[in-house]
Amino acid sequence: MPSLNAANDYENESIMTFLKISNVDRANGRLTLRGYDISELTGHATFEEVAHLLWHGKLPVQSQLDDLKAFFSEERNLKQPVIDALRVFSKESTGMDVLRMSAAALSIGYDYTHSRDLDVVEQQAARLQAQMTAIVAHSWRLSQGFDIVEPKPEHGLAQGFLYMLEGKEPSQARIDALDAYFVTVAEHGLNASSFALRIIIGTNSDMVSALTGAIGALQGPAHGGLPGPVHAMLEAIGEPANAEQYIRDEVEAGRRITGFGHSIYKVRDPRAGVLSDAVEKLASVTGERRLLDLTWSLENTAVRVLEELEPGGDHYANVELYSELILRAIGIPSTIFTEVFAVGRTAGWTAHMIDQLEEDRLIRPSSLYVGGHGLTWAPVDARK
Amino acid sequence: MPSLNAANDYENESIMTFLKISNVDRANGRLTLRGYDISELTGHATFEEVAHLLWHGKLPVQSQLDDLKAFFSEERNLKQPVIDALRVFSKESTGMDVLRMSAAALSIGYDYTHSRDLDVVEQQAARLQAQMTAIVAHSWRLSQGFDIVEPKPEHGLAQGFLYMLEGKEPSQARIDALDAYFVTVAEHGLNASSFALRIIIGTNSDMVSALTGAIGALQGPAHGGLPGPVHAMLEAIGEPANAEQYIRDEVEAGRRITGFGHSIYKVRDPRAGVLSDAVEKLASVTGERRLLDLTWSLENTAVRVLEELEPGGDHYANVELYSELILRAIGIPSTIFTEVFAVGRTAGWTAHMIDQLEEDRLIRPSSLYVGGHGLTWAPVDARK
Repeated sequence: MPSLNAANDYENESIMTFLKISNVDRANGRLTLRGYDISELTGHATFEEVAHLLWHGKLPVQSQLDDLKAFFSEERNLKQPVIDALRVFSKESTGMDVLRMSAAALSIGYDYTHSRDLDVVEQQAARLQAQMTAIVAHSWRLSQGFDIVEPKPEHGLAQGFLYMLEGKEPSQARIDALDAYFVTVAEHGLNASSFALRIIIGTNSDMVSALTGAIGALQGPAHGGLPGPVHAMLEAIGEPANAEQYIRDEVEAGRRITGFGHSIYKVRDPRAGVLSDAVEKLASVTGERRLLDLTWSLENTAVRVLEELEPGGDHYANVELYSELILRAIGIPSTIFTEVFAVGRTAGWTAHMIDQLEEDRLIRPSSLYVGGHGLTWAPVDARK
Repeated sequence: MPSLNAANDYENESIMTFLKISNVDRANGRLTLRGYDISELTGHATFEEVAHLLWHGKLPVQSQLDDLKAFFSEERNLKQPVIDALRVFSKESTGMDVLRMSAAALSIGYDYTHSRDLDVVEQQAARLQAQMTAIVAHSWRLSQGFDIVEPKPEHGLAQGFLYMLEGKEPSQARIDALDAYFVTVAEHGLNASSFALRIIIGTNSDMVSALTGAIGALQGPAHGGLPGPVHAMLEAIGEPANAEQYIRDEVEAGRRITGFGHSIYKVRDPRAGVLSDAVEKLASVTGERRLLDLTWSLENTAVRVLEELEPGGDHYANVELYSELILRAIGIPSTIFTEVFAVGRTAGWTAHMIDQLEEDRLIRPSSLYVGGHGLTWAPVDARK
C-alpha cells in the first residue's frame, strides 16, 4: 500500500458540503427541509409552496405563490422538437432511459447558459420542475399508444400531472395525496443524485446537464430502487393474518424482507409516517383500505418478528414501503414509480443547483494513485 | 458556525478514491496512464492501444488489438432512431448540448442494464467509444447542412472520424496527429467529469447515464474550457516579434493571457510537450508551421515576461494552448473542439466506469446541515 503523497495527486481539497437545504437526522428519524420538519409540511403545504421554500429558503407569500403557479402553468408546455423527440424515444425505449433522453433535450428553445443571476436560475429551476411533470406524463401516454393531453392552465402541478397522465379531471382526494407524495420526496440531503449534479454544475455547466446527470444517478437500483417488489410481496401475503408466517419463511430462506432495513435511518423513516397519514386521508374518501391495512399490519408484524429473529438488526420500514403504497392508492401506473419520484425530487435537485451556483466552486475530490510507474512502451509484436 | 455532529448527518464515509488508471503529478509535471508516462504513449501507441490499456490495464497483444479494431468498426454504426434524433437535435441546438442529447439516446437498441460481467462492461465501453466518434462527426455535418457519411470498415477510429467529418480520405499525417491528440487527452485523473460519472455509476446505474453525466460536467467552462480564445490571441499577435508587447499590454490592462496559468500543474503541462511534438511531425509533412512557430515563440516569451512581471506566479502554458494548436493544424472545425476532446476522453471516462463497477460501492460524501430547525408551518395569509 503506498503512502499518501499529496504532491503526487490532486490537492486534498475538502469536499465536505455545508447544506442549508435539508437535514437527514438518521439517529432520531427526522427530516428537516429549510428548518421545517417534514411532518410540518406534508399535509399542510402544497408542493408549489415547498418548491418555493426549497429554492428561496422561505415559504411564499400569496403573491409569490400566485406568480409561481402562473409560471408553472405556462412553462409546462413543451417545445415542439422536444415532443417530436419524446415520440421517437417512447417508441424505442422505456422508463428512466426515456426520462434521461427527454430531460437531456429540455434545453431546446431556451437559453440555459450558466448564469449567477438568482432570478434567472430560479426561473430555470421552476421551468424544469414544470416540464418534468409533462415529459413523464406524455412519455407514459405515448408508450401506451395514447396521444398527449395538454393540461388546463388552472391546474396545479399535481393536478395537471394526473390530468396529463389520464386525460380526465382527477378527484381532489387523489390530487391531495399526490401533492403530499411530491412534498414528502422533494428533498433528502446530499444523496448520490444531488451530489452528482452539484459536481456537474460546479464546473459552471448548465441546469439541464445537471438534471440529466441526477436522473442518471437515480436510475441506479442502489439509489432509486426498483418499483414493484413491495406490491408483489403484499399480494403474496394477501391478508394480515398471513404476514407473520410469510416473514418467518422468508428470513429462514435467507431472503431479505422487501421494504424493510437498508434504510438511511436508524429508526423508522420519518417519511413513512407522513405518507401513511396521506394514504389514510385518501382512504377515508375512497373507502379503499385493503392495501393500507395490510401494510400497517405487515409493518407491525415485521418489526416485531425481525427483532425477535435478528435482535438489534436494521429492521425498520424504509420509504419504499409507503411510497409504493401511496402511488398504488393514487392509481399511478407501477411502471413509472421512479419517474414520478423524480418529478417530486426535481424541486430538491434544482435547489441544490442554485445552492451550488451560489457557492461557486469546482468540487474536486482527493485521490491517491496506486498504479505503476515507469513502464516502457514496446511494439505490439514484442508484448505478451 | 455549528459543530459537526455526525449523528445528525450522513456518516462521514471517506470518498478518497484509490486510482489505478492514471496519476497527475502536479509538482513534477508528469502524467502517467496505467504505469506509462504520457510521453511513452503519444506518438508510439495508437488510440486503440491506449483505450485497451485504460480498460484492461495492459497494452493489447496483436489478436486483442485486431479484435478491438474490428469491434470499433462494427459498432460505430448508429441505430436508425439515434440518427433520427440527431437530425432533430442538430437542427434545433448546437455544440455540447447536441452531444449530451445524442449520448443520452445511445441506449436505444442495446441492453445497457447494469452488469458486473467484465466482458460485458468492456464491450459496452468499446461501443460507446466507437459511437462517440459517430455522433460528433454526424452532428457537425448535419449542423452544416451536409448529410451523414458512413465510415469504411477498414478505417481506424481517428481515420474514420475524419472520414465521417469530411467525406473524403484523410492523409496519414493528419490521422496520426489526431490519433496523438486522442491519446494525449484520453485520461487525466479524477477530474470533475470522471468524479461525476463515478458517482452516477456507483448507484449501479448504466454506462450511458454515466457518459451523459460526464459530458454535462465537461460542458462547464470551468472544466472543458471554451474553444476559440487562443486562436483569437494568436491572430491578434500575428508574428513572433509582436508577442512581447502584446503580453505586456495585456498584463498592464489586468487581463490574463489565454493559454497560460490556471493549470492543474505547477510546472509545464506534460501534455504541452507531446502535443507540440505531434504538431511538429505534422508540420514536417504539410510544411505549415506558421501557427506552430508563433505558439512556440509566444510560450517562450510569455513564460519569460510573466515571470518578470509576476515573479513566482503560475505562468506556464496549459493544455488549452497546444490542444487548440493541434486541432487547428489538423483542420478540425473550431466549433467542435470540446466535442472532439470528449471523443478522446471517452476512453478514460469508460475506464473509470469499469473501475467503479469493480469497486462496487455507493459514493456518499459527508455533509453538515447549517440551516434552521423547528420552524412551524403557517397558512399563506399569515406569512410575511
